[in-house]
Amino acid sequence: MTARDMVQTLLAGRSGAPARDHAEATAPANIALVKYWGKRDAELNLPVTDSLSVALTPLGTQTRLAPRRGGDEVTLNGAAVPPDDPFAVRLARFLDLFRPAPDVGFAVATVNTVPTAAGVASSASGFAALTRALDALFDWRLPPAALSALARLGSGSACRSLWDGFVEWRAGERADGRDSHGVPLSETWPGLCVGLRIVDAGPKSAPSRAAMNDTTASSPLYAAWPDTVRRDLAAARAAIARRDFAALGATAEGNALAMHATALAARPAVCYWQPETLRTLRRVWALRAAGTPVYATLDAGPNVKLLFEAPARSAVRVAFPDLQVIGPFDRAP
Amino acid sequence: MTARDMVQTLLAGRSGAPARDHAEATAPANIALVKYWGKRDAELNLPVTDSLSVALTPLGTQTRLAPRRGGDEVTLNGAAVPPDDPFAVRLARFLDLFRPAPDVGFAVATVNTVPTAAGVASSASGFAALTRALDALFDWRLPPAALSALARLGSGSACRSLWDGFVEWRAGERADGRDSHGVPLSETWPGLCVGLRIVDAGPKSAPSRAAMNDTTASSPLYAAWPDTVRRDLAAARAAIARRDFAALGATAEGNALAMHATALAARPAVCYWQPETLRTLRRVWALRAAGTPVYATLDAGPNVKLLFEAPARSAVRVAFPDLQVIGPFDRAP
Repeated sequence: MTARDMVQTLLAGRSGAPARDHAEATAPANIALVKYWGKRDAELNLPVTDSLSVALTPLGTQTRLAPRRGGDEVTLNGAAVPPDDPFAVRLARFLDLFRPAPDVGFAVATVNTVPTAAGVASSASGFAALTRALDALFDWRLPPAALSALARLGSGSACRSLWDGFVEWRAGERADGRDSHGVPLSETWPGLCVGLRIVDAGPKSAPSRAAMNDTTASSPLYAAWPDTVRRDLAAARAAIARRDFAALGATAEGNALAMHATALAARPAVCYWQPETLRTLRRVWALRAAGTPVYATLDAGPNVKLLFEAPARSAVRVAFPDLQVIGPFDRAP
Repeated sequence: MTARDMVQTLLAGRSGAPARDHAEATAPANIALVKYWGKRDAELNLPVTDSLSVALTPLGTQTRLAPRRGGDEVTLNGAAVPPDDPFAVRLARFLDLFRPAPDVGFAVATVNTVPTAAGVASSASGFAALTRALDALFDWRLPPAALSALARLGSGSACRSLWDGFVEWRAGERADGRDSHGVPLSETWPGLCVGLRIVDAGPKSAPSRAAMNDTTASSPLYAAWPDTVRRDLAAARAAIARRDFAALGATAEGNALAMHATALAARPAVCYWQPETLRTLRRVWALRAAGTPVYATLDAGPNVKLLFEAPARSAVRVAFPDLQVIGPFDRAP
């Protein structure tokens, strides 16, 4: 089963021609509380395990998509991206799955409100927004689960960026990947806060695809990862259901550190941390030891995301004055 | 089986009374190339896996032991150690196994040539030297393997400090622990260098016993550790046999990082690293990427030990001007 086969199956009976001259869409960034780390199918981005995220609404991506003659034309935050840039190459490969004819190009204007490639999942919101824009441009009117499966082909974690709030990515069992997509949880958590501490906003030292594959292939500790995720997912679901912040925070932090630990044990080591990453973690642990319920999570990069609740906000701000704080459930309805 | 039972079995038929008024002994420090991390029996210090070390001769411990009336009297590097200090308590508990009568004390004068509790295994050389001093004081004339098993009761890794050069600690299978001791390898490696980079010479944040137990009990990645060690030991043995430095270095570094990774994944995390630890590792990786064959290993602490061969010595010294370099096999015969 190739990605193109999956797309053709999902789009069966739907139009292959644009229904309008352009379309716009947005999608939120997300951070995983239980991480996606390891693929069972590289082309289809099928994961080894389930994962669980919370959307970073309103942070995310806004995308404008229009068909055009000739090749693709990509802008990122207003600046033209050269066609041989890895970002443009990745977009083009994804768009190849949806071109009405090989010579049809797309103009893609992407605006991220999170630092690109800083480990804050700009690829997740980017491919989710692009998939929504494709749906609007071609007037497919696909259900969100199908859009989620399509977005997954661009970036695995993008399949969780089709919804606000908590989203589980069910790994699925089918070889064709149609059952591997996001599923939103009904629970909300007013007052939940996510603090972004940007240690380094530049591109990461190891792109997460390569690092994930190196870890899966060479880390002797990866064998224990799937069971770790199974236990952590059950614990996180239960913590969300009973709104137990200490349990959710401890599970998210433990799971993130376990992910980084499997990477560190890859051979050679995959180490995302910078000295400031470590200092940030130690400050989080010191805050917690002093009575402030705050936990850390890290994606495949040096940046640290803090998890806390509204009552801890001022204490956390004193320790981290430059923190960008998001309340995923605090928007007006 | 208690530690006392094991001692009585090993000392059966030997004198319980001092044969002289004092005895002196030395033992080398050692660093593990394949780590000891996890116990199957806490009282007897029986490990889950085999491990492999190289002695840091001439660095180590020199101990003078004399029986005295009243309680024990401990000095460390010339300074009196209060009886309630953890170091004195640990020595007293070990000496309890060998007192001719409950009211017999010992004067123990310990001189370490490695920083105490800095992750350079001063407890290993300390208990090995003390065990040798006991053997001389009581005139037991035990074979080295028996002394190794006795030293193990003081500190697991001490059982590897009874020999110079490469030593394997065979985990053994017996419940009484008599078959769990060091075994020296016949191979030598002239020109092998170990560089000590002391990031922090103070006491470590988590004593290795407690950290090891916390990791074994709570790290979801520990399940993959025994298999990791099995593979690494086979690789390290083979590398030593064919004197393949790149293979030995890569195995030692990978094994050390896997150990720290299992600790990092403990819940809560056991993190020995300081920002300078990470900077040192990154500098090692950069040196290697630039063509200098140098590898890193870390014990349960923030300090980094560098492994290299004599031809790389000047390049390593340029990158690490304050490095203390030991040639474990370079002494005059």
